[in-house]
Amino acid sequence: MDNRKRIFSAMRPTGRLHYGHMAGALINWVKLQDEYNCFWGIADWHAMMSDYADPGRLKDNCYEILLDWLAVGVDPEKASVFVQSHVKQHAEIHLALSMITPLGWLQRCPTYKEQILNLQNKDLSTYAFLGYPVLMAGDILLYKSFAVPVGEDQSAHLELTREIARRFNGFYGEIFPEPGTLLTPAAKMPGTDGRKMSKSYGNSLQIAEDMDTIWGKVRTMMTDPARERRTDKGTPEKCPVWDVHKFFNKDAQELSEIYEGCMTAGIGCVDCKKKLMVHLSEMMDPIQKRRTEFAKQRDDLKQILEAGAARARAVAEETMADVYRAMNLLH
Amino acid sequence: MDNRKRIFSAMRPTGRLHYGHMAGALINWVKLQDEYNCFWGIADWHAMMSDYADPGRLKDNCYEILLDWLAVGVDPEKASVFVQSHVKQHAEIHLALSMITPLGWLQRCPTYKEQILNLQNKDLSTYAFLGYPVLMAGDILLYKSFAVPVGEDQSAHLELTREIARRFNGFYGEIFPEPGTLLTPAAKMPGTDGRKMSKSYGNSLQIAEDMDTIWGKVRTMMTDPARERRTDKGTPEKCPVWDVHKFFNKDAQELSEIYEGCMTAGIGCVDCKKKLMVHLSEMMDPIQKRRTEFAKQRDDLKQILEAGAARARAVAEETMADVYRAMNLLH
Ligand code: SF4
Ligand code: SF4
Repeated sequence: MDNRKRIFSAMRPTGRLHYGHMAGALINWVKLQDEYNCFWGIADWHAMMSDYADPGRLKDNCYEILLDWLAVGVDPEKASVFVQSHVKQHAEIHLALSMITPLGWLQRCPTYKEQILNLQNKDLSTYAFLGYPVLMAGDILLYKSFAVPVGEDQSAHLELTREIARRFNGFYGEIFPEPGTLLTPAAKMPGTDGRKMSKSYGNSLQIAEDMDTIWGKVRTMMTDPARERRTDKGTPEKCPVWDVHKFFNKDAQELSEIYEGCMTAGIGCVDCKKKLMVHLSEMMDPIQKRRTEFAKQRDDLKQILEAGAARARAVAEETMADVYRAMNLLH
Repeated sequence: MDNRKRIFSAMRPTGRLHYGHMAGALINWVKLQDEYNCFWGIADWHAMMSDYADPGRLKDNCYEILLDWLAVGVDPEKASVFVQSHVKQHAEIHLALSMITPLGWLQRCPTYKEQILNLQNKDLSTYAFLGYPVLMAGDILLYKSFAVPVGEDQSAHLELTREIARRFNGFYGEIFPEPGTLLTPAAKMPGTDGRKMSKSYGNSLQIAEDMDTIWGKVRTMMTDPARERRTDKGTPEKCPVWDVHKFFNKDAQELSEIYEGCMTAGIGCVDCKKKLMVHLSEMMDPIQKRRTEFAKQRDDLKQILEAGAARARAVAEETMADVYRAMNLLH
């Protein structure tokens, strides 16, 4: 019996993860798993909501995301790592919460309208997609998570989770604690074009990519646009390479030298990027080695997911027993 | 392994059943269980959709409805009798089908608008209630039911079930047979006031009521309004007592005599009703005896529901395995 406080978080298996995921979430997850009883879900039902018309890559993507997690240091001995649809209670709590969730809350949800606009090439006018926040609330409440690690942009959804929890508790008694947030230090990781790193922009550095590929991308990565020639002075704050440095380069003295060098045209961008690569390699080499090793053992991956789902189910079934009792269902 | 064709039907546990349920469905169920592999569900999630704000009677109602079924002759050895929420796969298939169900289909569903109007004292503007037809489609498709026993008024919902099945099959391959209908001979059972028998009209004869109570209701039951005095001639077609006779009185000669007697004022309404009571008693006495016996054995009832749910789950899990495979979920 694990008495540590519980945390749930999840990612949609829509493709390989990039350095932004690592900086924005995974490195934090690796820390959290030492302190909390963590449930990390591969949210395949959520992925299905947007990819229902073409789920051909879904199964592979579950393995890819798992490999990325394990590579970065998510430890299935410390945390329960599982696929959402392997735990039937996610579907059950979704149905239970849907009973008391007012339609208007979902229709007015700002992220709902936003996503419909963002993904205009997909038909998202489905019943499931409208209920996205209900499934998300269920994911979190199923583990009675005391808090959820979030980036700043996800707070709207979490507020809806809390409202659903309050409404359920109002009808049936105090079943669900209202989850708080563990704000992930917002490491704004830029992509190679200077915009936010994102798969859809094609500007990302993927965890699975080898260092030759990464160098190919870093070499051509955007720098301070004002520094056209080697002899031009630069402003690090205007350079995405500098943002990546700040995240991966822990050598304070070298950072100072680069900062000075850029401002005075004492260092060239190619050299600056080569220095960055040293730190990227240092961080990513063991990650890639682990990824390669895990990728060879498909059976081990299956066992990790099975064991994780079993642990998740045990907690989830306890919660559902409370839900049945509270709602006066015969069980 | 039961190779008979499968049928699913369900009732919402919202209270004790009446003679209308018996005439409109249960007597037919008792026949069907000899020929088909029947799954009879106590649809507690469906009941929760309208009663979520006050589910206090839900648990008792599950037992009441089960007792009514068993009393009328539903045989748990022949059919799988279970509570919907005991089979988690109902929630799962609801979630799976919701992925591909267009919102517009649900918003335009005529019975949706109708029910919102009918139940104005309840707030039905919830996410679950909008998805009522999705859960219903899931119930039926989970057992790959070849057909569904329906009254004429339920055909709209079944059409939506077929459309959802077709859309799913269109995306992922032929998983679900489109269910046909087994039209239940529409025995229009009037209540004591001549309107359709319905709990909400307070005009019903309940299966659980003893014959003294029933006689109290039949004695004051509405007759042909034109027959104010004993000496007035009547028209059986205009008399709800006659409709009940036609259903329960299998004695063709007596029926003829009543018909003639009514037309000629040869028989009084009280005598006519007493004759009806003879047939009601004949039918209901063994039913009530069975009900009383079953009611004493709460543990047996639990076992019946457990065994029924186990059988339902076995079939449901096979279907879900097909669904996972078709949707390319990792399982
Ligand atoms: S020297 Fe480094 S920080 Fe300065 S502009 Fe070039 S890449 Fe950017
Ligand atoms: S005699 Fe019977 S059928 Fe005729 S009006 Fe009276 S109750 Fe109705």
